[in-house]
Amino acid sequence: MEMKSWSRKSLLGLEDMNREEIICLLDKAKEFQKVLSQKGSVLDLLKGKRIINLFMEPSTRTRVAFEVAAKTLSADIISIAESSSSLTKGETLRDTALNIQALGADAIVIRHSSPGSALFLSKTIDVPIINAGDGAHEHPSQALLDIFTLRENLGALDGKKITILGDILFSRVARSNLWGLKKLGASVTFAGPSTLVPEGFEKLGAKVTHNLHRALENADAVMLLRIQHERQSSSHFPSLSEYTKIFGLSSNQEKILANKTLILHPGPINRGVEIDSTLADCSRSLILEQVSNGVAVRMAILYLCCTSFDKK
Amino acid sequence: MEMKSWSRKSLLGLEDMNREEIICLLDKAKEFQKVLSQKGSVLDLLKGKRIINLFMEPSTRTRVAFEVAAKTLSADIISIAESSSSLTKGETLRDTALNIQALGADAIVIRHSSPGSALFLSKTIDVPIINAGDGAHEHPSQALLDIFTLRENLGALDGKKITILGDILFSRVARSNLWGLKKLGASVTFAGPSTLVPEGFEKLGAKVTHNLHRALENADAVMLLRIQHERQSSSHFPSLSEYTKIFGLSSNQEKILANKTLILHPGPINRGVEIDSTLADCSRSLILEQVSNGVAVRMAILYLCCTSFDKK
Amino acid sequence: MEMKSWSRKSLLGLEDMNREEIICLLDKAKEFQKVLSQKGSVLDLLKGKRIINLFMEPSTRTRVAFEVAAKTLSADIISIAESSSSLTKGETLRDTALNIQALGADAIVIRHSSPGSALFLSKTIDVPIINAGDGAHEHPSQALLDIFTLRENLGALDGKKITILGDILFSRVARSNLWGLKKLGASVTFAGPSTLVPEGFEKLGAKVTHNLHRALENADAVMLLRIQHERQSSSHFPSLSEYTKIFGLSSNQEKILANKTLILHPGPINRGVEIDSTLADCSRSLILEQVSNGVAVRMAILYLCCTSFDKK
Repeated sequence: MEMKSWSRKSLLGLEDMNREEIICLLDKAKEFQKVLSQKGSVLDLLKGKRIINLFMEPSTRTRVAFEVAAKTLSADIISIAESSSSLTKGETLRDTALNIQALGADAIVIRHSSPGSALFLSKTIDVPIINAGDGAHEHPSQALLDIFTLRENLGALDGKKITILGDILFSRVARSNLWGLKKLGASVTFAGPSTLVPEGFEKLGAKVTHNLHRALENADAVMLLRIQHERQSSSHFPSLSEYTKIFGLSSNQEKILANKTLILHPGPINRGVEIDSTLADCSRSLILEQVSNGVAVRMAILYLCCTSFDKK
Repeated sequence: MEMKSWSRKSLLGLEDMNREEIICLLDKAKEFQKVLSQKGSVLDLLKGKRIINLFMEPSTRTRVAFEVAAKTLSADIISIAESSSSLTKGETLRDTALNIQALGADAIVIRHSSPGSALFLSKTIDVPIINAGDGAHEHPSQALLDIFTLRENLGALDGKKITILGDILFSRVARSNLWGLKKLGASVTFAGPSTLVPEGFEKLGAKVTHNLHRALENADAVMLLRIQHERQSSSHFPSLSEYTKIFGLSSNQEKILANKTLILHPGPINRGVEIDSTLADCSRSLILEQVSNGVAVRMAILYLCCTSFDKK
Repeated sequence: MEMKSWSRKSLLGLEDMNREEIICLLDKAKEFQKVLSQKGSVLDLLKGKRIINLFMEPSTRTRVAFEVAAKTLSADIISIAESSSSLTKGETLRDTALNIQALGADAIVIRHSSPGSALFLSKTIDVPIINAGDGAHEHPSQALLDIFTLRENLGALDGKKITILGDILFSRVARSNLWGLKKLGASVTFAGPSTLVPEGFEKLGAKVTHNLHRALENADAVMLLRIQHERQSSSHFPSLSEYTKIFGLSSNQEKILANKTLILHPGPINRGVEIDSTLADCSRSLILEQVSNGVAVRMAILYLCCTSFDKK
């Protein structure tokens, strides 16, 4: 069925996908979500497949989510989680991937600090490449699980208003969501301090605002991004507490937020920084639902990419 | 059968368990030990279950032992072995655990530096929590394997005399053993230098002595604790060699030790420090038997906690 | 069938093996290679076996290759990849291995910085020990996959001329290949700067030359070793670029190389240092074929050692 709209072997980003492909993948994820809701169920769909998780930037969450997804489909998955320097010892990224392919990998899930690394690999090696984050470029599995979660709660996204709030400048999550949400008909607002949300993003099709009130009013959902304060150079805003005061989502904004505005966050959340606990734990918060949906979405990604490849 | 005495979904410590529960678990471990003695046998009892090993303090032994136990029951186990700072990035422990639950975990085995962390999680999230060591508080799977090994060799423990010798002050192993052994009717003596064995432990029901001769004579078993000399601040005893001279178990003490006194040690052993090689390798040493029994005991823990949970 | 020539439970090195054993293992690997060529095939030959990968020196490639090999045979494999200090906490290597055996391991694959560590373990514990690299001593699985690849491409090796070029002094790969190749009738030349290729190696049965022209002419295959420039003290040659100029394999040498000279490299390759890209990617380069063959060879190693042991 799904093969009508799906003919890719690699998942690189949402900029590159069309509406039909996105919906095809989300529909497949919906099927898997139903399976997951039955405790202890394991599918044999990828039995005998070898998937390599190649994480050349630190990450636990995304890596473990792909591991759970792969194992639920009965694939073998081996995670390589190392800094690129200790792994490659001067080897090129292409050679590393060719080596993994030569070991018999049926797909490579890759996180790498360089934008375009997944695209580059998909052009030079044969096995499916799943982009699990390439620098500040794209993080498609995260955006797809965000969009899946929005559709579960809002229905079709045409005409829906989604605000993405926080550190947009360095966020691959914001970029991937922008492409995906627009293709499904939603309008996207990027919000935050002007240092983190440059006007230039308007060219990509987002509305840009530095006013929290304007960002929140009428939004169907607000998607928060983590302030990566351990990485942030001090130059982007005066202090963390000042950021929180102006752009943190707290119960003070509940009067601005429409009654049903949904709250999403890719995690890990900094309680009291970008969101306070009242809102993080309220009934409109979909934060943990996102995590659960992430397993189903990654099962769909692995399944579609690995089986599409078989037919070529 | 075992369900008569077992109704817990989490294993937090031995202080909290009653005699019947401890014996129920040890009996289940005995069943699994018989299975393990047949080479290559794998049970399907936890097939389709996902167990997450969340080790936020460095550990290889306990983590691998839980991995072996889970795989022998056909569960999927994914180990996350990271310092808490790099994993959580400012996230609360509860949020980390809620995320793991949202990924579909059926149980979480946790090691954490904070006493009470496992108890805290068991109260705030739904899946079984297995305490694999919480600070200096409890290490129940270690104590249960120690007690299992003692019962295998001594029979019922009522009236038996067990000496625990070494760094009691910082030892979760000593605390867990004290609770468990007393509930099974044994009398427990804590021994070592007064800096590491404060008199206050008498209030918990242990005898306390700083005299090695008194600690060893008439003991049915002596359980050594590792002197963690890589962590030990120098203030607890003058020097390692002085500790060894006064409290190290060497062939000099063989005349004090009763003929059949059993020797246990949770490992890794420092030969020549807390025990010399003659005694570590003698026929009364149960050190490797403890390791083997640890697999059966952890199988029982995982099985009882995961299946008790199903029925609720 | 293979049992006629195979009666070992441990694989320690090629110095110790005879010609029949090497050929027996290579023939078994050939069988597994055929199975691997059918996508998605998994064998049940080691189902229920527990293999521990004990990597006490950093390594990703060899470790992952053993993981893939074990999983393809349906064995459970658990990797312990840690510096020896953090793992052992003062414990002896023998005690570490005895602990792993007590956990129920059916084989231990070990990488360790000390020459002879695998041999030592094989003498003191019962389960099969697979040497995955012991200091500068031996790296038998690498040499066996190199030899397998040479035989696939050259046929029987009797009378064949193999040149090993580069950092011979510190190379366990060179040593293991020397023993293996000579037993199969090949003649081996060690080549490189005199600081890295001491004359003393002639006593082991290799020809030694410091002249690249002489090293390459008439060679049936040249096996490059990586210049470990991140480890190399500057004293062994003046500079990396000087090494490359004199001993790097570049298209300049194509006129020297016989028309069909095969090129091998254990990886990771430093393009532009010990080999330039034209040659690394040419049709005579077997570099990726080596990686693929490594899975089949390691399946043969695990299978033969684990099943030979059953019969004792």
